[in-house]
Amino acid sequence: MEEIERKYRVVSTEFKDDSHQKYTIKQGFLNTHPERTVRVRITGSTAFLTIKGKSTADGLSRFEWEKEIDANEATQLLALCEPGMIVKDRYLVKKGNFTFEIDEFYGENEGLIVAEIELNNKTDSFEKPNWLGEEVTGDTRFYNSQLSKNPYKYWKK
Amino acid sequence: MEEIERKYRVVSTEFKDDSHQKYTIKQGFLNTHPERTVRVRITGSTAFLTIKGKSTADGLSRFEWEKEIDANEATQLLALCEPGMIVKDRYLVKKGNFTFEIDEFYGENEGLIVAEIELNNKTDSFEKPNWLGEEVTGDTRFYNSQLSKNPYKYWKK
Repeated sequence: MEEIERKYRVVSTEFKDDSHQKYTIKQGFLNTHPERTVRVRITGSTAFLTIKGKSTADGLSRFEWEKEIDANEATQLLALCEPGMIVKDRYLVKKGNFTFEIDEFYGENEGLIVAEIELNNKTDSFEKPNWLGEEVTGDTRFYNSQLSKNPYKYWKK
Repeated sequence: MEEIERKYRVVSTEFKDDSHQKYTIKQGFLNTHPERTVRVRITGSTAFLTIKGKSTADGLSRFEWEKEIDANEATQLLALCEPGMIVKDRYLVKKGNFTFEIDEFYGENEGLIVAEIELNNKTDSFEKPNWLGEEVTGDTRFYNSQLSKNPYKYWKK
């Protein structure tokens, strides 16, 4: 499956007022290489293994394969992951026909908030809320796999 | 699950006379790191994703997690793998209570034949056939993940 996603920085926490769902995500990577990212994610009692390929040249889509796995097994797999576990709260915010997934990061990525919107077509337009900042689609620094190796805390700002 | 396995070189092809099953395996790696190996394997119409952790100090056991996956999806995942696909014929040879899995490699690993036996306990003893050579248990050069990066053809012999 190919995903078309656009990613933005979030410039205020006003999005929390519009959010209808929130959950905490813990994830690690068995490989952080951008051409073959292997992610273990645990959300409550649910867990997934996700493999992503290289982004297309425009940065908008990327091969993605995902399978639900047993949460206890996922905990064992997290222990094998590269150093740099990602912990974040995810908020869902519905705007028109689309849903923003907003990630507020903790730990070494504290201070970073990123919103993603999944589109059906590259040309889909959507309403931009006030809290939506600069677009960072395709900027590999914002990939969670890269944030696990080079956390936000150490970025030059 | 932990596996207890001992691995040997195979010094003749006489094992083929005793084999009751043979199939071809194609496999690639999404990570070849010995602490977090991620393997995609296709055997006929069956495919598996396997994740292995670090070996124990004695080299006899290693954390292993495996899930059957769709063979068409596995073909897509093979395309993401690191360069160095492994192709081999696997022969099964039953001896007493144990079954040897013997891999005859092709491509850049042509000439290498390796037998593995899975034991229930570290102290299990078993009959050693004439074709069984030197033990190489725990020698990481013989890991398939390492053979994909440093094939037998290029070894100093």
